[in-house]
Amino acid sequence: MISKKMENMTANSSAIRAMFEEGNRLAKIYGSENVYDFSLGNPNVPAPESIKKAIIDIVNEENPLVLHGYTNSNAGYMEVREAVAASLNKRFGTNFEGKNITMTVGAAGGLNVALKTLLDPGDEVIVFAPYFGEYRSYVNNFDGVIVEISPNTDNFQPKLDEFEAKLTAKTKAVIVNTPNNPTGVVYSEETIKKLAAVMEAKQEEYGHEIYLISDEPYRELAYDGVEVPYLTKYYANTIVCYSYSKSLSLPGERIGYLVIPDEAADSETVILAANVANRILGFVNAPTLQQKVVERCLEEETDISYYDRNRETLYKGLTGCGFECIKPEGAFYLFMKSPVANEKEFCSAAKELNILIVPGSSFGCPGYVRIAYCVAYETIVNALPKFKELAERYF
Amino acid sequence: MISKKMENMTANSSAIRAMFEEGNRLAKIYGSENVYDFSLGNPNVPAPESIKKAIIDIVNEENPLVLHGYTNSNAGYMEVREAVAASLNKRFGTNFEGKNITMTVGAAGGLNVALKTLLDPGDEVIVFAPYFGEYRSYVNNFDGVIVEISPNTDNFQPKLDEFEAKLTAKTKAVIVNTPNNPTGVVYSEETIKKLAAVMEAKQEEYGHEIYLISDEPYRELAYDGVEVPYLTKYYANTIVCYSYSKSLSLPGERIGYLVIPDEAADSETVILAANVANRILGFVNAPTLQQKVVERCLEEETDISYYDRNRETLYKGLTGCGFECIKPEGAFYLFMKSPVANEKEFCSAAKELNILIVPGSSFGCPGYVRIAYCVAYETIVNALPKFKELAERYF
Repeated sequence: MISKKMENMTANSSAIRAMFEEGNRLAKIYGSENVYDFSLGNPNVPAPESIKKAIIDIVNEENPLVLHGYTNSNAGYMEVREAVAASLNKRFGTNFEGKNITMTVGAAGGLNVALKTLLDPGDEVIVFAPYFGEYRSYVNNFDGVIVEISPNTDNFQPKLDEFEAKLTAKTKAVIVNTPNNPTGVVYSEETIKKLAAVMEAKQEEYGHEIYLISDEPYRELAYDGVEVPYLTKYYANTIVCYSYSKSLSLPGERIGYLVIPDEAADSETVILAANVANRILGFVNAPTLQQKVVERCLEEETDISYYDRNRETLYKGLTGCGFECIKPEGAFYLFMKSPVANEKEFCSAAKELNILIVPGSSFGCPGYVRIAYCVAYETIVNALPKFKELAERYF
Repeated sequence: MISKKMENMTANSSAIRAMFEEGNRLAKIYGSENVYDFSLGNPNVPAPESIKKAIIDIVNEENPLVLHGYTNSNAGYMEVREAVAASLNKRFGTNFEGKNITMTVGAAGGLNVALKTLLDPGDEVIVFAPYFGEYRSYVNNFDGVIVEISPNTDNFQPKLDEFEAKLTAKTKAVIVNTPNNPTGVVYSEETIKKLAAVMEAKQEEYGHEIYLISDEPYRELAYDGVEVPYLTKYYANTIVCYSYSKSLSLPGERIGYLVIPDEAADSETVILAANVANRILGFVNAPTLQQKVVERCLEEETDISYYDRNRETLYKGLTGCGFECIKPEGAFYLFMKSPVANEKEFCSAAKELNILIVPGSSFGCPGYVRIAYCVAYETIVNALPKFKELAERYF
């Protein structure tokens, strides 16, 4: 009835769905204030007031035929694309123009557009474990093959030796996600330079382009002044997939963009193909009102102090109980070592105390768990005694 | 560099792009008031005032964390889905519940979700010429094979004998689009009953489901009181792909829905798979603000009198010049017979008079041209003398 591919996908998705339903079930029994749901990456800082103002001003000021109409190009309104390019140039010293920007239905939409643009069946796409599990589905949509680089559990920077060994003539793209989901690690400039050097050498060796796809919805969420390198400056064949989901707390509105820089080989062809892919995958164009909203809010800064307080409190609390964690430098996830090898058992034990966390296996990294701290501060404060109770079973 | 599939797609898309650029070029030379651009299906009736009011009220009333957040289900807000179901039940006497509705990124998004849900590589999808050319791309996205039924140029109702002959064991789905783009024809109840009977018999014969996909962005645009049958009532394995693009003039906002009725075989599995497809194709969920906007505007009626006046004026004018046209009953397209067999030549001749129309070949029906009359009334009035001049070259 449904396609064979979807049979597999649907079976896998039921596990996540079951977890979500479990949370709802527990909330009904114990009250939602007594359930500590750290399972989802849904921002808990509301969109800035300026978003609301922008929406109201735009619908009052603009001609509805243009505002709600198809955009002339599937890449979006040229004035929005130019404003995005100018803002990036100011922040990162890049040289983008409007033509380098394709507005997309979030980063998930952008990643699908990029992969549709690039992949032939059997092409390999390298990811560094731990990584966002949806990449498997996105690559599978276009019959690509995911190649995992095993996790470097010392500091969760990518293992570059293994990367070099696994980067073959079949490799068409490499996905990086920094600040990282699920670890919160920011790839250092040193890492990026080495990674770029490996890719340059392999491009030379194999005689074809290998694309670096930078999935960066968490770019603005970096703590302690940590710099997040802008990847087009280190490697020419880079495609950036950005989203306003986390930075402006607009995940439901589905608004983001792709950057395809002039430095990329035959960039005009890649840009045109991405625009066609945006159309034929059924996105057509990024939602028009939201395009104009983000144009007016480009200078808006996320209130990361909220997440930062959560991060510090959670990290201190968990390490204080004896858990082994890497301190996140960005995003809103903390990656914690499970006290037992089978982290799914540990997640089950946590659930008995109404703590919901995600097994690292979902990210290609068993033995760890992901704790999403984009929750109310009180949830963290109230969960810590439960984590302590949990720790006492192991340490 | 780009994928082989996209190389073909990009080459084809350049023709449409060239036409668009040609329109802009002509407008610069002659002034946009002297260019008669009938090439695009972009609504020319603005969104109703109630849309603006709904947007402002919603952002003032709703919690931004919920309003702009991910929806709990990839299918959208349950209250919106329930409201859509109730509205359909009231209008069409159906029995849908919220679970039968999946909010989508327009009908283009919905079609891709439906085809992703159903198609294995090599599965055949039947379309009736003339048909919206994008179906080729959508089916190709999932390695399906388009099977065309040749046009019935008497009245542009589908040729059911040829349909029966070409409906094989490989057929997984049949797409219908009524009111039709590009002909403006509404498939009669008699046609639908016969089509459903053929499909029922073939399902029985082959022992597997064959899906009827109803692409209906033009449902509300029907003139002279013509009834547009609601297809789930005639055939159980129907999936409806709806869009508010034309009915509420919101094409840029990307909002629509799928209906998967309980009557469909194992409907829960199909619904779950569609929700997963919505997620993994990168839509994630339909834009949240627009979900709530359409919820508040479900009872809003399109001002079809505007298009109707265009339709009558254009039809009368063209037939008065000697052109042979089928009178549209719905949508905002008029399909006209080219006075010469090679309609691309005719389109070129029209372009010399600054009239932009689309060759029927783009819709699998050479020898005809599509005239999109969703334009200013004045454009039609001013174009008619030019059409007369054109006619005099042939008749």
